[in-house]
Amino acid sequence: MLEKLKQKVYDANIELPRRNLVEFTWGNASGIDRELGLFVIKPSGVDYAKLKPYDLVVMDLEGNRVEGRLRPSSDTATHLELYRAFPEIGGIVHTHSPWATSWAQAGRSIPSYGTTHADYFYGAIPCTRNMTPEEAGEEYEKNAGIVIVEAFKDINPMHVPGVLCANHGPFTWGKDVNEALHRAVVLEQVAKMAFYTEHMNPHAEEIHQSLMSKHFLRKHGSNAYYGQR
Amino acid sequence: MLEKLKQKVYDANIELPRRNLVEFTWGNASGIDRELGLFVIKPSGVDYAKLKPYDLVVMDLEGNRVEGRLRPSSDTATHLELYRAFPEIGGIVHTHSPWATSWAQAGRSIPSYGTTHADYFYGAIPCTRNMTPEEAGEEYEKNAGIVIVEAFKDINPMHVPGVLCANHGPFTWGKDVNEALHRAVVLEQVAKMAFYTEHMNPHAEEIHQSLMSKHFLRKHGSNAYYGQR
Amino acid sequence: MLEKLKQKVYDANIELPRRNLVEFTWGNASGIDRELGLFVIKPSGVDYAKLKPYDLVVMDLEGNRVEGRLRPSSDTATHLELYRAFPEIGGIVHTHSPWATSWAQAGRSIPSYGTTHADYFYGAIPCTRNMTPEEAGEEYEKNAGIVIVEAFKDINPMHVPGVLCANHGPFTWGKDVNEALHRAVVLEQVAKMAFYTEHMNPHAEEIHQSLMSKHFLRKHGSNAYYGQR
Amino acid sequence: MLEKLKQKVYDANIELPRRNLVEFTWGNASGIDRELGLFVIKPSGVDYAKLKPYDLVVMDLEGNRVEGRLRPSSDTATHLELYRAFPEIGGIVHTHSPWATSWAQAGRSIPSYGTTHADYFYGAIPCTRNMTPEEAGEEYEKNAGIVIVEAFKDINPMHVPGVLCANHGPFTWGKDVNEALHRAVVLEQVAKMAFYTEHMNPHAEEIHQSLMSKHFLRKHGSNAYYGQR
Repeated sequence: MLEKLKQKVYDANIELPRRNLVEFTWGNASGIDRELGLFVIKPSGVDYAKLKPYDLVVMDLEGNRVEGRLRPSSDTATHLELYRAFPEIGGIVHTHSPWATSWAQAGRSIPSYGTTHADYFYGAIPCTRNMTPEEAGEEYEKNAGIVIVEAFKDINPMHVPGVLCANHGPFTWGKDVNEALHRAVVLEQVAKMAFYTEHMNPHAEEIHQSLMSKHFLRKHGSNAYYGQR
Repeated sequence: MLEKLKQKVYDANIELPRRNLVEFTWGNASGIDRELGLFVIKPSGVDYAKLKPYDLVVMDLEGNRVEGRLRPSSDTATHLELYRAFPEIGGIVHTHSPWATSWAQAGRSIPSYGTTHADYFYGAIPCTRNMTPEEAGEEYEKNAGIVIVEAFKDINPMHVPGVLCANHGPFTWGKDVNEALHRAVVLEQVAKMAFYTEHMNPHAEEIHQSLMSKHFLRKHGSNAYYGQR
Repeated sequence: MLEKLKQKVYDANIELPRRNLVEFTWGNASGIDRELGLFVIKPSGVDYAKLKPYDLVVMDLEGNRVEGRLRPSSDTATHLELYRAFPEIGGIVHTHSPWATSWAQAGRSIPSYGTTHADYFYGAIPCTRNMTPEEAGEEYEKNAGIVIVEAFKDINPMHVPGVLCANHGPFTWGKDVNEALHRAVVLEQVAKMAFYTEHMNPHAEEIHQSLMSKHFLRKHGSNAYYGQR
Repeated sequence: MLEKLKQKVYDANIELPRRNLVEFTWGNASGIDRELGLFVIKPSGVDYAKLKPYDLVVMDLEGNRVEGRLRPSSDTATHLELYRAFPEIGGIVHTHSPWATSWAQAGRSIPSYGTTHADYFYGAIPCTRNMTPEEAGEEYEKNAGIVIVEAFKDINPMHVPGVLCANHGPFTWGKDVNEALHRAVVLEQVAKMAFYTEHMNPHAEEIHQSLMSKHFLRKHGSNAYYGQR
């Protein structure tokens, strides 16, 4: 079942090491079929080099494994929370890409310092609060999803399609898994450049609202004029 | 028309990702035929892997598309302003290369700290002023060109063949598109080394005028003696 | 003799330059057969490109060469001390990987700033004390092993499977040479991200005990649930 | 003439871009035949991709071109000064490798922070003084050699086989061109790690004399025991 979606999610997963976003098995990509209410995710701890499309696991939105002989990613419960809370998203990517992960470890949101950022993220990329010892306990992965959703209380997840999980690493999303992957690459670049920006100029200011809007709206929404249409 | 120029501009464009100067479609190269008053530029948002020489768009210096079925780069109006204001240049390259872009985000010109810089740029590489909200509005890309030209009020663009567009990224140019590409590579190296120089020695001073002149004039002008002639 | 072990140790050795952990001959991997009390190690100063499995040297735990026409790695006495002091380890990797080596040169332990660290190392990765001039004299390589063991007086080497040798570089270990190699890769990533974390936030705090335990125990021990089993 | 030496010098030259030590034509390697008093050097400004062994230029120690139809490297006079002043050296490599060049731009010697450094360089790698405007004038490249030699007034160039030319970049040397190349790679690694060492610990101290001696003498001199012999 869901052969097409499995292929897309497989393609995104194996792109993660190729894009230098993950070492070993440190990442996972998933995609959802909203009509069926089922999502496809990487199995836990399987080498990307050995992964096959039919190894992917199909889950429902209650957290039940619907198909697949392997155990799903240990981060499955986090994906699940995001699919539930953000109905417009169709794909999620999680990595330990070094620049984004360093911001997550620093416990800081990534300020919007330039147009590369504004082309994809309409404002700072938030970092979640630390989890309490209780949250880090029994239902840790589910709670990771909950604190992410909490960070988006006042932010539209389609305008800022990514987050830093404090002490852990980034999650990105989009209308499908390919868009989530694309933004994982962008996030890593933006995270790197934000670091250097601050160290070139400790008084660097975030991009002005007018320029941020210009760039985001060149690429998104009904008046977008970037690319071919 | 302009088949030879299209091939050269195409070659420069596909070199951008190979040289690690762009991710995805974040960059564009153009070249001009000064006799005809026409320039050739990359179409907007087309993957480098799929780009073909005949996809390139031919524009006149009034901003009209003269040939091509695709929309030109969203930065076309910036290229146009530069071709108008700097009559000696024959090619332009724009990237979001990370080191140069970080300086642009920091809002700082790149000081001339060494001979690698002085071999190509006769003085600091300027960063434009911030654009006003009005300038970032309707004719944004044209205004980007205008603030670049403004930054060269007292600088000869053939002596300093590149600029940082504040909060955005670098533009480089040269007598043809290949020279513009070459300088985009140099700029990225120079931007990286300037950062480390300042962090190795916060009191680092710019290269002395005598050494800067020596190096620039070894490679440029009638007394140049670098290379074979 | 020990053909299988030689092949494993060979495989780990030639992976070191591929993983960008060593330049030239700056590293070595070894593996032990605990039943026979013999370990296999890279010969000294042999290019990885020219190394063959049968070039590997077999040593006993008294420091005698049991087989092999080449001289063993100059760091052999360090490996020997570790095999003696840590009976649970089956393989050791030493590199001069740049990030970990920089921490060693800085004389600092690597704080545990995130889950990538906690997935493999249950606490800070210690840096040894400086050696005295006497220790750096006659039996230098043996003494290097002794100061490493000293640093683990209050640390379980299976919980923190790596160390920084002050002014020198990292050693990692595991149940076999492949696990030691895996951790050498992880250590380099963790060392890089810890540096950036501190420079993004000078007040960054180590990961909370609850989250560290969660991640380490997801992957290790009887209640581990990461991966397939 | 000197076909064997030309091949060795050619091999070293084309290795420079492969080792990421040079962009474009920013570097040159040379080797000398001490009996004949002739050295072989890269021609000026020729692409490494197009360079052929027979393109190399043969020079005598008076600075006359003895063979070759191309002009020698613009840095030839610097090589010449070094061959004259340091009679034990047989090969020289000059690059603009980014880490070493950044130290040169910062005007700082590279402190000896660890054993990787001490394995090859017995003490800090000196940075020359700035040249006066007069020195940067007519005989610039010759004067570059002279200020290098001046920096080695109290240093044995066989113990510290490299230097940073202030504001410019590194030169390394050795008993032949291959050893000079090897040390150019080491210098770049050492330069990178010294930077990070200082930023991990602003109070980092240079390696103790006893450990420095141990490592340098493990690899050099009559009591060396590293490698196979």
